[in-house]
Amino acid sequence: MPKRDNISMSVIRRLPRYYRFLSELKDNGVVRISSRELSDKMGFTASQIRQDLNCFGGFGQQGYGYIVEQLYNEIGNILGLSNRFNAILIGAGNLGRAVSTHMSFESRGFTLTAIFDSNESLIGKKIRDITIQNIDNLEAVCKDRTPDMAILCIPRDSVAALADRLYHLGIKNYWNFSHYDLAIRYPDVIVENVHLSDSLMTLCYRMSNKSEDIREI
Amino acid sequence: MPKRDNISMSVIRRLPRYYRFLSELKDNGVVRISSRELSDKMGFTASQIRQDLNCFGGFGQQGYGYIVEQLYNEIGNILGLSNRFNAILIGAGNLGRAVSTHMSFESRGFTLTAIFDSNESLIGKKIRDITIQNIDNLEAVCKDRTPDMAILCIPRDSVAALADRLYHLGIKNYWNFSHYDLAIRYPDVIVENVHLSDSLMTLCYRMSNKSEDIREI
Repeated sequence: MPKRDNISMSVIRRLPRYYRFLSELKDNGVVRISSRELSDKMGFTASQIRQDLNCFGGFGQQGYGYIVEQLYNEIGNILGLSNRFNAILIGAGNLGRAVSTHMSFESRGFTLTAIFDSNESLIGKKIRDITIQNIDNLEAVCKDRTPDMAILCIPRDSVAALADRLYHLGIKNYWNFSHYDLAIRYPDVIVENVHLSDSLMTLCYRMSNKSEDIREI
Repeated sequence: MPKRDNISMSVIRRLPRYYRFLSELKDNGVVRISSRELSDKMGFTASQIRQDLNCFGGFGQQGYGYIVEQLYNEIGNILGLSNRFNAILIGAGNLGRAVSTHMSFESRGFTLTAIFDSNESLIGKKIRDITIQNIDNLEAVCKDRTPDMAILCIPRDSVAALADRLYHLGIKNYWNFSHYDLAIRYPDVIVENVHLSDSLMTLCYRMSNKSEDIREI
């Protein structure tokens, strides 16, 4: 079965979850799993799992299930995790430090190559063997090799001016922790937003409306 | 129009975004806005906006638009942001510190009342006037007043044992930054997950499949 066109964001957002669960199964020595067993583990229905995976060509065999390691590798390929996209991080405060310290960039498709901040007390310090540079060096550093992606861990107010600089340096992909809506200003960029306060407000809604029947999709 | 039953998670997840945009419009002195203008600002279609808001009763008038401050307040009420749910945070490492320092809990429906860690070098230090306590004190602190929600900023491996303690203390709502799937172990809890590595992998997919036509919903 060939990969489908026009796959929905909801399906794509579930792929990393499959990948995580399969990684765990693999580490636990599980060789083969049915969509029903996978559904019990993941909290999706078996039919949802089959539908999702069929978008990318389908991998299981009727009545036989999925080979864990094979499916894990296939989903990794679909996600493009071997790409090693060159990423830079802007903002080495608490959040930037947490992101740069804890993320396994290499196994998620990226290599973190530079960290920038404007705070004099942080410049020169190291995170993961990467020296925090003055943001004034941005253009010089990006001249030889345009980064594929920029991680924005700076306050909303600082993003507008900086986004113009990054965009004109040719950076078209962003992992955005600020509340600045890049995609509205630059419709041709790819932005993955992490809006922590939206997530917190969603939790507040769910806690405030407990009795409500919420559809998952 | 009454509020609908069976509202989808996708609609609920868009509410905080409306709230943010309306907050900004209000701060900029905008009094009234049409769904078309709002759609230009937010990158949703005008019809999507009308449909979303109709789930909660509908607030605009045909041909007149929305009163910004009124809609802002109504959405805040729908989200339950005045609740001041009592929240505790577990894990005062870089991520926990970033979350506890930067989040406006009070304006997002929560009050952060206690921070716990097991790392001796952190215990006794303060974040936002809250003293980091030894995780051994958890039961004692929660005895008098059960927290409404726990924020988990600890590694996946530490969560399983801790989740049992929290659950048996009566905590049924979680803002979960770990990769441990609480909702599978405890189907009756409300969990809002922040899976940063899933977000990074989704970005990797989108960068690896640029030419692809992805449906937003």
